[in-house]
Amino acid sequence: MGMPRIDGDRLWASLLALAECGATAKGGVNRQALSAEEHAAWRLVIGWARDAGLTASTDAAGNLFLTLPGSDPQALPVLTGSHLDSQPTGGRFDGVYGVAAALEALLALAESDVRPVCDVIAVAWMNEEGSRFAPGMMGSQAFAGVMSMAEIEAVRDAQGISVAEALAEQMAVFAELPRRSLGFPLAAYLEAHIEQGPVLEAREKVIGMVTGIQGKKTWEITLSGMEGHAGTLAMADREDALAAFSRIAQRLYEEIGGHDTMVKFTIGRLRVEPNAPSVVPAKVVFSIDLRHPDNPVLEHLGQRLLAICTEQTAPCRVAVKALVDAPSNLFDADLQAQIEASAKRREIPSLHLLSAAGHDARYMAPLCPSAMIFIPCKGGVSHAEHEWAEPTHVTAGAQVLLDTLLTLCTDTSRGEP
Amino acid sequence: MGMPRIDGDRLWASLLALAECGATAKGGVNRQALSAEEHAAWRLVIGWARDAGLTASTDAAGNLFLTLPGSDPQALPVLTGSHLDSQPTGGRFDGVYGVAAALEALLALAESDVRPVCDVIAVAWMNEEGSRFAPGMMGSQAFAGVMSMAEIEAVRDAQGISVAEALAEQMAVFAELPRRSLGFPLAAYLEAHIEQGPVLEAREKVIGMVTGIQGKKTWEITLSGMEGHAGTLAMADREDALAAFSRIAQRLYEEIGGHDTMVKFTIGRLRVEPNAPSVVPAKVVFSIDLRHPDNPVLEHLGQRLLAICTEQTAPCRVAVKALVDAPSNLFDADLQAQIEASAKRREIPSLHLLSAAGHDARYMAPLCPSAMIFIPCKGGVSHAEHEWAEPTHVTAGAQVLLDTLLTLCTDTSRGEP
Repeated sequence: MGMPRIDGDRLWASLLALAECGATAKGGVNRQALSAEEHAAWRLVIGWARDAGLTASTDAAGNLFLTLPGSDPQALPVLTGSHLDSQPTGGRFDGVYGVAAALEALLALAESDVRPVCDVIAVAWMNEEGSRFAPGMMGSQAFAGVMSMAEIEAVRDAQGISVAEALAEQMAVFAELPRRSLGFPLAAYLEAHIEQGPVLEAREKVIGMVTGIQGKKTWEITLSGMEGHAGTLAMADREDALAAFSRIAQRLYEEIGGHDTMVKFTIGRLRVEPNAPSVVPAKVVFSIDLRHPDNPVLEHLGQRLLAICTEQTAPCRVAVKALVDAPSNLFDADLQAQIEASAKRREIPSLHLLSAAGHDARYMAPLCPSAMIFIPCKGGVSHAEHEWAEPTHVTAGAQVLLDTLLTLCTDTSRGEP
Repeated sequence: MGMPRIDGDRLWASLLALAECGATAKGGVNRQALSAEEHAAWRLVIGWARDAGLTASTDAAGNLFLTLPGSDPQALPVLTGSHLDSQPTGGRFDGVYGVAAALEALLALAESDVRPVCDVIAVAWMNEEGSRFAPGMMGSQAFAGVMSMAEIEAVRDAQGISVAEALAEQMAVFAELPRRSLGFPLAAYLEAHIEQGPVLEAREKVIGMVTGIQGKKTWEITLSGMEGHAGTLAMADREDALAAFSRIAQRLYEEIGGHDTMVKFTIGRLRVEPNAPSVVPAKVVFSIDLRHPDNPVLEHLGQRLLAICTEQTAPCRVAVKALVDAPSNLFDADLQAQIEASAKRREIPSLHLLSAAGHDARYMAPLCPSAMIFIPCKGGVSHAEHEWAEPTHVTAGAQVLLDTLLTLCTDTSRGEP
């Protein structure tokens, strides 16, 4: 007992155990949102939480909550966590680190002499990655009221399974969990995450106080042409959707992707129909992910991008579906200062940095004071099976998270509605 | 009884019944090679053949033979047919017409006073389309000894199922069928088919005497880069396989596809890995289908195409797998003359034309005198769900096929080894 302290070995062991849920042959993880693999990860964290006397609950959007109760039922809870789903060839830290660190912090609190005033809740948001169901961050967007449940439930994966169906299956598997309402009031939100970029490693820092998240826009573009026989249909008579894609993509990579050194432009997913070697493609559906820290530049590039898609399409037709439209946002300055103070006290080198990747914290920031704690990842690599974070950094991030939570959950002045 | 005569209504009814095997919602057909849908089509044609006293057999490559026995067991058989498999969004005539017309001709012969000297055999070749297992024309290539069974059996579909496994399943379903050897000697080969091009329709002809098949080369190209996070990996540090594809494809469409009015250049199939909206693509695998009637031009374009793939790849890597390399070929002049004579006798307008599409007849031509009979298809459209042929043309093609078969199977001078 005494002051709460992160158990680095336990945290590391929990990350390794969670990495078994959806483990790939190459040492990575494929743990899609609302899949059997994610169910397995839920079972693990619910089990660990209950062993420590925490209670588990969920909500209509399939978010998972693990609660350490506070002494004052009137005090607004502090929320901390991230997500358990991964990219199809994802790694062992992206998202799951923030959930495991949150739970470890709660276990450390539960085992300590400290009695929190408010509830401290660890959360695993539903479908942050958006790889099975697009767009991502569905759970936090539902919680924040940015997307309606009707909109979310209608989304289907590549196999035609809807979010509604997958959610119903998950609710059946975890039927015993009580339901919380979406968007319950919060005192603060904290999220620990690997950086997914090279800055901390290059600057030899271990803790990043995240100032904000760069703006992001995503679209799904559909090019429609006409199928035909590869051996007989004259080139001049073709409406080849993949030829139209190549013209458009080549221009987009050059003009949008080459605009400046800050822009990130990605076509990550593409589907061809009917996708047979001797059939002229009738349809191409592809995703665009555009990010920029400067909101006016992001707006300008988004407009140019749509103009290029339209100009280069003939003789095919284009349909544009806007998915994410999230400007750059800023995190709470007080919370950044508390994170920095904790790192200083523990003599862990830290710096302020902008997040190039999107996170659920984006949708929490308008609801309550929110902040993120980054730790380095090797080579800045993420969304890849060889993603790696050093055990000492994993522990350091969780310790700083715990310190910050401790201030929040024992400071009754913040907990008042 | 009397002279054999095509029953146009029965032939049309059999085409409609076969179109139910793998019928799509849009009125087309998805009947992949060695699939349950193709098994259903086999059951239909075997049933019709047996009802008329014909015998069914198969071979190691999964080709189906329906035999009307001749009076002289020493006389070399005459073979006629096409294929029952379709493109994923294929039509109700491509391939299946040649099998149904062949069977109808055999039924007409069986019901007539004519007793053929040699066996007359209808064939349905395995996997002509190459959409489930690449390359296509596996059955005829195996029969002709152009591909070994080992090579064919190792090919896998998108689900990882090998031809060996799919063949074993088919052999189990049709275990009662006797096995013929591959490449048994033949007196002649005839194949009826829709034109899959606009020439007959535009010139208002009903029968095409096919002079030959334009040359074809196909490849599978793999571009390998490195995956990464769409929001954090700087554009300059990316090895984006889809960006490399776009550069290459844009050049190929321009230089190869735009070379002259005769060339056909198609990228019909493309797969992205890991294919997630927020992951920089690590791998792109795509097919190339190149056709040209002029062999030296085909060779030249093939070399330029590979040079472009290599030049434009950096910073990714390229791997090239050559699949089909088939120069233009010519069909038997005597058989073309017989087809023309039959059309003239019946006052059906005809013309000579080159086939822009590949057919199993390509691989029969070096084995025995071979020829093809084309009928028009609406708008020249094929490999599409709205593919259409007029019932009167369907009957006319089968009648000319029957006339030509009749000459071949009663002319004992051709049957000698």
